[in-house]
Amino acid sequence: MIKNLLKEYSSLIENRINELFPEVESGYSAVSDAARYSLLLGGKRIRPAITLLFCELCGGKTEDALDFAVALEMIHTYSLIHDDLPCMDDDDMRRGNPSCHKKFGEDIALLAGDTLLTQAFYVASVASVSPEIKVKAAKVLSESAGLHGMIGGQVLDLSFEKIRPDAEKLTDMYMRKTAALLICAAKLGIIAAGKDTEQNLKSAEIFGFNLGLAFQVIDDILDCTADEKLLGKPVGSDEKNQKTTCVTLYGIEKSREIAADMTDKAISALKNFGGDTEKLENLTEFLLSRNY
Amino acid sequence: MIKNLLKEYSSLIENRINELFPEVESGYSAVSDAARYSLLLGGKRIRPAITLLFCELCGGKTEDALDFAVALEMIHTYSLIHDDLPCMDDDDMRRGNPSCHKKFGEDIALLAGDTLLTQAFYVASVASVSPEIKVKAAKVLSESAGLHGMIGGQVLDLSFEKIRPDAEKLTDMYMRKTAALLICAAKLGIIAAGKDTEQNLKSAEIFGFNLGLAFQVIDDILDCTADEKLLGKPVGSDEKNQKTTCVTLYGIEKSREIAADMTDKAISALKNFGGDTEKLENLTEFLLSRNY
Repeated sequence: MIKNLLKEYSSLIENRINELFPEVESGYSAVSDAARYSLLLGGKRIRPAITLLFCELCGGKTEDALDFAVALEMIHTYSLIHDDLPCMDDDDMRRGNPSCHKKFGEDIALLAGDTLLTQAFYVASVASVSPEIKVKAAKVLSESAGLHGMIGGQVLDLSFEKIRPDAEKLTDMYMRKTAALLICAAKLGIIAAGKDTEQNLKSAEIFGFNLGLAFQVIDDILDCTADEKLLGKPVGSDEKNQKTTCVTLYGIEKSREIAADMTDKAISALKNFGGDTEKLENLTEFLLSRNY
Repeated sequence: MIKNLLKEYSSLIENRINELFPEVESGYSAVSDAARYSLLLGGKRIRPAITLLFCELCGGKTEDALDFAVALEMIHTYSLIHDDLPCMDDDDMRRGNPSCHKKFGEDIALLAGDTLLTQAFYVASVASVSPEIKVKAAKVLSESAGLHGMIGGQVLDLSFEKIRPDAEKLTDMYMRKTAALLICAAKLGIIAAGKDTEQNLKSAEIFGFNLGLAFQVIDDILDCTADEKLLGKPVGSDEKNQKTTCVTLYGIEKSREIAADMTDKAISALKNFGGDTEKLENLTEFLLSRNY
């Protein structure tokens, strides 16, 4: 059920990506080819699906949230491209395929990431909604992806290769690196629907925080337990890099409990919205039970 | 005279940078330190000065254009940080100081660039102007800095290490890599003043195109002729990298003539604006006569 829904939303998103970021023929097509390669490499499209589902939950129209959903997916994809670079995580594989720099070279991959980040704000600025809504979306996108959000999380993550974090520091890193964009996803849907009350935004934060932490804890578990082919990237990389994760702090069983508890909290936060939360609940539970 | 004016504008810009992007104390301060290092490393602040001068020329208030000017300088600075990385131009020095990655490491420099690009759109989204004006500014910023603008120019520039460009291709590269952000600078000032008529934007394009090309041709000349200490970066790098430049295509004397002709055209375009263009004319002439 939820898999079919995700597929449906993925088609919507990918069609819109192709409209907003078509192939170009020019002397600089290498960089747009590289950006499109990473953007269309698949993935579960969790973030844009959350944006569309929150917009629907708040009574908004899908088309009003679609471009913000694409913008967010562009930002997520840029972060993966830059994260895979040799000076960062140095990952050769992504979603079962060569990572962007392995396929296109480091220089082009760097610029492809830059292109996607820039293009995300272009897409937000030309969305078919009012200027007020566009400005709110751009503010949330830039805050969530910026210094105190996702990028701060990446820096903390890098620093944990040298300094062993305690549980509090690890939570702070997960919050910024993973939860920030999930909170952003929910808020973008609420903003697109014009229902960005303080209470709704606060509920989105609780939802995204818990979903993000659960998501990251499950990533840590899968890094120890998953089938490499199914996961599409090497397993055991945390151990190889001697990284502190939820699993190294608490073990696998306790980590599973933590993820389940946070998933419950995320679902509770959904109840604060009046409407039908079934799809978002199913999505949240699906993310807990995933094995890739 | 113009040097004093540039100093005055530089102070304005740098004070505002310090307000909008203060030092942070946190586990991820390395990346904000690196971003602030590059942002405050000096430079002539040509682009933000152009934004402020065009706003003034169009009867606008400096404070309405100031945040857009800072956003543009952040984008310019991010591009320099990423351009200097080993997988790009691999430059150890910038403005007489170690380049960002030499001082902070490649991973932090990469993320510092990402931070500045993201923060530029945050700054544009919280500027004290109407949402309509903010959206117009974000659109121009993202178009100018994106795939078909600055980044396209960087990709063309990289490709010219393999394929020798003719004059037309070299012009196209200069247009995107350098002129796009100068055109953007002028347009941001016009937009901030609320005077973004088709004619004014067209005149800004002619001004920025010619100024950008003149600027780039002079860069090519300085790479052969400048005092390395004054220039703050190694000279002769184009020759070392066997790059085609205006100088290799036409020689130094003809290149000087081309730069002078384009400077004249840029100044002519200013006449299309009704107001007092003296400061912008002086700035344009100063850029032609610069020896660093």
